[in-house]
Amino acid sequence: MKIRDVVLTPVAFADAPLLNVMGVHEPFALRGVVQVVCDDGVGGLGESYGDAAFLGEVRKVLPELAGHDIFDLPGLKRIIARALAGTVLTDEHGLIGGFSIRKTIASVYSLFEVACLDAQGQFLGRPVADLLGGKARDAVDFSAYLFYKYGAHLGAEEDSWGEILTPEALVGSAKRMVDEYGFRSIKLKGGVFAPEQEIEGVRALAEAFPGHPLRIDPNAAWTPATSIRVAAELDGVLEYLEDPTPGIEGMAEVAREASMPLATNMCVVNFGDLEPAFRARAIGVLLSDHHFWGGMRDTQALSVACESFGVGLSMHSNSHLGISLAAMVHVAAATPHLTYACDTHWPWKTADVIEPGVLNFVDGAVAVPDRPGLGITLDQDALARAHEDYVRCGLTKRDDVTYMRKYTPGFEPNTARW
Amino acid sequence: MKIRDVVLTPVAFADAPLLNVMGVHEPFALRGVVQVVCDDGVGGLGESYGDAAFLGEVRKVLPELAGHDIFDLPGLKRIIARALAGTVLTDEHGLIGGFSIRKTIASVYSLFEVACLDAQGQFLGRPVADLLGGKARDAVDFSAYLFYKYGAHLGAEEDSWGEILTPEALVGSAKRMVDEYGFRSIKLKGGVFAPEQEIEGVRALAEAFPGHPLRIDPNAAWTPATSIRVAAELDGVLEYLEDPTPGIEGMAEVAREASMPLATNMCVVNFGDLEPAFRARAIGVLLSDHHFWGGMRDTQALSVACESFGVGLSMHSNSHLGISLAAMVHVAAATPHLTYACDTHWPWKTADVIEPGVLNFVDGAVAVPDRPGLGITLDQDALARAHEDYVRCGLTKRDDVTYMRKYTPGFEPNTARW
Repeated sequence: MKIRDVVLTPVAFADAPLLNVMGVHEPFALRGVVQVVCDDGVGGLGESYGDAAFLGEVRKVLPELAGHDIFDLPGLKRIIARALAGTVLTDEHGLIGGFSIRKTIASVYSLFEVACLDAQGQFLGRPVADLLGGKARDAVDFSAYLFYKYGAHLGAEEDSWGEILTPEALVGSAKRMVDEYGFRSIKLKGGVFAPEQEIEGVRALAEAFPGHPLRIDPNAAWTPATSIRVAAELDGVLEYLEDPTPGIEGMAEVAREASMPLATNMCVVNFGDLEPAFRARAIGVLLSDHHFWGGMRDTQALSVACESFGVGLSMHSNSHLGISLAAMVHVAAATPHLTYACDTHWPWKTADVIEPGVLNFVDGAVAVPDRPGLGITLDQDALARAHEDYVRCGLTKRDDVTYMRKYTPGFEPNTARW
Repeated sequence: MKIRDVVLTPVAFADAPLLNVMGVHEPFALRGVVQVVCDDGVGGLGESYGDAAFLGEVRKVLPELAGHDIFDLPGLKRIIARALAGTVLTDEHGLIGGFSIRKTIASVYSLFEVACLDAQGQFLGRPVADLLGGKARDAVDFSAYLFYKYGAHLGAEEDSWGEILTPEALVGSAKRMVDEYGFRSIKLKGGVFAPEQEIEGVRALAEAFPGHPLRIDPNAAWTPATSIRVAAELDGVLEYLEDPTPGIEGMAEVAREASMPLATNMCVVNFGDLEPAFRARAIGVLLSDHHFWGGMRDTQALSVACESFGVGLSMHSNSHLGISLAAMVHVAAATPHLTYACDTHWPWKTADVIEPGVLNFVDGAVAVPDRPGLGITLDQDALARAHEDYVRCGLTKRDDVTYMRKYTPGFEPNTARW
C-alpha cells in the first residue's frame, strides 16, 4: 500500500498562561498535523510539534514520500535522513533537552511513523497497538498535570481555572482535575517559585490527596545541592523527582543522595544518552515520548533497555491534541514495561482536531480504542479552524521567555537558579 | 483471530559428527515444531529446541492456548509465565549460557510468538518482516560455519564432508561451502584443539579467503591469559573473537587487551546480563538469537540497546530447520542495527520439514520471502518422517560429552582448558 499524498497542516489551539522555568505559556500552542493519503480510502494521521523550524524540516520530507510503501518504515527513516541532510534543530517547542542530528531525524521520523502505522492499521483492519505486539493493558493511566498559572492572558479575561499561585489554589485545581478525569497520581510543574514555596505546594497536595503518588518537575531549576536538600525534605512524599537539576552529571550527584528515583525528559533524550546516564546511575525513571524518541517502535525498544538496567518508564507530554493522545495510548498499551502513569496536558486545552467520543478518561485512564489504526477520525472543520487560529495568532515558535517578560520585565529563565 | 489448537511435534534430523568444546554432535539433532491452528485456514509455525526438558515446558503451555487471540502477545507471555510457574530449565540443547526463570519463559514464549506472528501474517496477508516494522534489508547475510569434524558417526559410513581435522581440510570444507552458498564471511567453531592448532586453521583460512571476514568461536575453551595471547596473534585477521573465555569478568579482562571486538552468545544471554556486561565493557558484539532472547520483537529491542551502547549485533545459530531459518531471516531483515553476517548451521543438514524453494542462499544471503507470514509451507510428510526419526533415534537431549566418550574414553569438556 503506497502513499499517494501527504498533507501537512500547522495548527494552533488556545492554551492557558501556565508557568514554568522558562516563563509562561503563550495564548496559543502550536502543533503540526499530517494526513497520509493512500488509495482505497486508506490513510493515516500524525501529530507533532508546530514551530516553524520543525515544520520546515517536515516540509523537506513531504516531496519524497509519494509512492513509498506504508509498511517500509526503515526505508521511511532513510528517506528522512537523506532529506534532512544533517540539519540540527534547536528546541523551539518544549523543554525536552538539547537537539542533535539523530534527535532531529527521530522527531521528524516519528511524525510519519505514527501516520504510517495508523494507515497500516486502517489497511489491515487492526488497532495500532496490535501492530506493536498487542496490548499489555486495556487502558493507559495518566497523571493529573498541575501548573502554577496566571489567571488570564495579557489583555484577556480570566480563564475557568483562574490564578493558581498558592498551595490552596494548587489543591483546588487538583481537585477539579481529579474530579473530572479521575487521575490517581498528580504531577506539579515547578521551577516557578523558590523551592521552599514549591515544597509547600507539594505538601499541601500530599495532605489533600493521601493516596495519590506525587511528582514535581522543576525543569532543572535547581543546583545539585538544592536538589539534594529538596529530595531530603520530600522524602516519603514523592514517587519520583523529575529533572531537579541540569545534565547527567548533576543528576547523578543528586541521585546518589536522594531517597526517591530521579526522572528525566531533559538529560536523556536520545539513545546516545543511555550509556552515559546509565553508567552514571543518573536516573531511576525515563520519561519516554514517542514524538522525539524516534516513534512508537523505538519507544518500545527504549522501554526494554530501561527494564534491562532497572530503570522505570513513564511518559512525557508537551501540549498536544487528540492524535498525539491516541498515539500515546496505543504505544503505552503495547509497552509492557511502563511503570508509572503517563503525563498529559490534555485537561488544559479546550478544542481538538479529532471527532470526540473515542478517547475518554475513566479513573484517570484512557481505554485503547478497539478500532483500526489509531482509532480516531479527523474533524476536517475543526482542523480548518485550528489552522485559521495558527495563521491568525502569528506565532511561529514557543517562546515562554519573551511572553513572560510582558508580565515581568527583565525576566530570565530559572534554570539552575536556586 | 483466536487459536483453536496447537500441535507440538518433536522431530530429529541427521547431523554430522561436528566437534566442539563439549565433544561431538550425535547422529541426530532434535527440534520441536509447533503448528498454531486458527479458523478459516489461518495458522502459524514455530520451531525451537527439541530436548525433552524444553518440550516438557512447552507441553505445560499447550492446554492454555485455545481461545487466545494471536494478536495478544503480552497476554501470551503472561499465560506462559503462569504455566511454567517458575521452572528453571538447564541448557540441554546447545552452548547458549546458563538458564534462569526469565530465560526459560523467554525461550518458550519465543516458540509461540513466532507461530503467532506467522499466523498474524497469514491472516493479514503480510510478511512477518512487515509486522516487525518493515525490511531494513531485502536479504540477510549469513556466514559460512566451519567445524572440525570426524569423518563418520560411530558404526556409520563416511559422510560427504569427510574428516576435517587439519588446516587443509578446513580450507577444503570452506571452499565447498562458499562455492555452494556464496558466503562472504567465515566462522570456525573452535575449542576442539589446542589454540596454536586452531590459530593455524584460521591463518590457513585467511590465506585462502583474503576478502572474507573471519571469526573463531572456541566456546570459552581458553583462560583469559590464553585468550589475550590468541587475540594478539590473530590481530588484523579476525573481525571478531567469539566467547574465548567464560563469564563477563573474564571477557572484560580479555576485551581490555584484544584489538578486535569480543562477541558472545554465552555470557550475555538475557536482558539482565546487559547491565553488568555493558558496564564492564566485556563485549563488542552480541550474538542475538530469537529462540532464547524472547522472540522476534525482543530481538529487535535488544538490537536498539546494543546500538545505544556502541555494541554490534550478529546472530547465533543452533542446528535448525527451515522454520527457524525463515524466522531468523524475517527478524534480521527488520532489525536495522545488524552489523555482521548471521550464523547458521544450515549447510550441515540434509533434510527439512518445510517445502523447498523459498529460502535460497545467493551470495551467502537469503532473500526475505515476499509472502504472508513467514512465507514457508510445512511439508506434512517430511514432518512425519522427521518425527519418526525422533522416535526411532531415542535421543531426548543433546549430549555431546557422552557421545564423545565413545570416540575418546575419559573425554572431559574443554571449557577453560587451555
